[in-house]
This record gives sequence, structure tokens and C-alpha cells, in this order.
Amino acid sequence: MSLHGTYDDQNIFAKILRGEAPCVKLYEDEHVLSFMDIFPQSKGHTLVIPKEAARNLLEMSDAGAAEAIKRVKKVAKAVETALKPDGITIAQFNGAPAGQTVYHIHFHIIPRWEGQDIAGHGSAGQADMDELNALAEQIKAAL
Amino acid sequence: MSLHGTYDDQNIFAKILRGEAPCVKLYEDEHVLSFMDIFPQSKGHTLVIPKEAARNLLEMSDAGAAEAIKRVKKVAKAVETALKPDGITIAQFNGAPAGQTVYHIHFHIIPRWEGQDIAGHGSAGQADMDELNALAEQIKAAL
Repeated sequence: MSLHGTYDDQNIFAKILRGEAPCVKLYEDEHVLSFMDIFPQSKGHTLVIPKEAARNLLEMSDAGAAEAIKRVKKVAKAVETALKPDGITIAQFNGAPAGQTVYHIHFHIIPRWEGQDIAGHGSAGQADMDELNALAEQIKAAL
Repeated sequence: MSLHGTYDDQNIFAKILRGEAPCVKLYEDEHVLSFMDIFPQSKGHTLVIPKEAARNLLEMSDAGAAEAIKRVKKVAKAVETALKPDGITIAQFNGAPAGQTVYHIHFHIIPRWEGQDIAGHGSAGQADMDELNALAEQIKAAL
């Protein structure tokens, strides 16, 4: 898939936004939905999904991008408070060669710890749901 | 260096912002400065530096983050127009374990091409200045 194309409203994040697919939710308001990445690259890997129907950052509105990054910061701070990582990588991928696998704009918040490399996306397999729910409770308590 | 600490106004990006160190400039306004990364991870690797004196995204103001991401989008679109990459990675690192090496908030815009991995930061060495200036001219023409 290239950088540009038609937005497909059957993508998995669109389904999650409509409540047609499940997620381990952290936060929701009029601009974004935030939930745990089910294929975490590290403990506490979370996503922030703008509600705007755009494939990537290049295609979304300035106003939408501005509202989104404020929520990325908010959730990242909660992840920091809850899990006390040594660092946090924020990543936003546009197009398959950049690592994008779902064509709805999203931001990754990936906690990092000293001496621990992050897993490739999906390479560590699907998260244990009990563990994911427990992490979500910790992060929500810090929001 | 941990996620938090005192902002050191002698960091290299602070010096660039004050005009005390050189850069290959792409764009500047009241909120940000954008220039070519001198240790590019791919052809056309650019940086967007908010002018706010903050170490990372977690420490910067919501308003500053919102203005910054609009400029990240603007510069990324110009990179796309100028260089026609197959993808663009946007990355923002908080803390050394996340990959941060300069403790002034910055966003990476890294063009990606099919079948090409990106270099580790600095591992490809310093860019050829003629090549960097030529890329900057192409990107500025698209801004």
C-alpha cells in the first residue's frame, strides 16, 4: 500500500472506533480513542487513534493532528506514571515501508527500559489478555 | 539520562536555535525550526524542533505540542512531494533508552523506500554537505 489511497472504513481500527471490534480501552473523548496494542512491542505499548477518517498524518487535518498530539502526550504521561519506564518512543508510521499495517492514522506509545530492545511488531505474538487488562488498569488509574 | 531533568540550554539544538551552531535550514516560524539531520538514517531525514525549551514531549506544553505537530505534517508533506518516498516514519524519542541523544524536544521525519532498511542514528556517518544542501533545496521548493 502506498502513502496515499482511499480510506477503507473496514480497517480494524475503524471497526474498533465503531464498537464492532473489541479493544482494551484506556481513554476516549470526542477526538481520539486510546487502547492497548494487542501485539505489544514492549510492556505497556499503547495506541492513540484519532477519530478522523484519515489513512495517515499526511492526510489528516491540522486541527485533528493538533488535538491528537495533546492526547498522545496525556496518555504517554499516564504510561510513564503507571509503569515508570526509562524512556518512551512515540512513533507514527505512514505507508507500509514505514511500518504501517493498519490504514487508519494512529500513534504508538512504546515504553522503553534500559538494556531492553523492543520486539518487532507482532513478532512477540499476541499479548496475554489478563496481563493487558492489568496494565490498562494501572494506566487508567494514572489518567 | 532519564526521562526528566533540568533543561540544559547548551545542548546542540538550543545552540542551533540561537544561531550559535549551523544547520541546513528548511523552515522556520515562531513555533519551530526545521533542518536536515546531519546524521541521516535515510535520504532526506529531517528534524522539526519546537522553540519551546523542553527536554521532551512529556515536558512540553499542550499548545506547543499542537503547533509542533502541524509543522511536522507540513514538512513531511514537503519531503513527500520533493523526494517521493514510499513511506514516512515520524518518530519522537523521550529518554536515552528510547533513542534520544539531544535533550531538546524534536521530531524525526524519516523517508522510507521499499526494501531499504534505515540506518542506526549516526551509524551511516555524517552526511555529505553538498548532498544535504541539494536535498534541502528540493524540500524547500515543495514547502
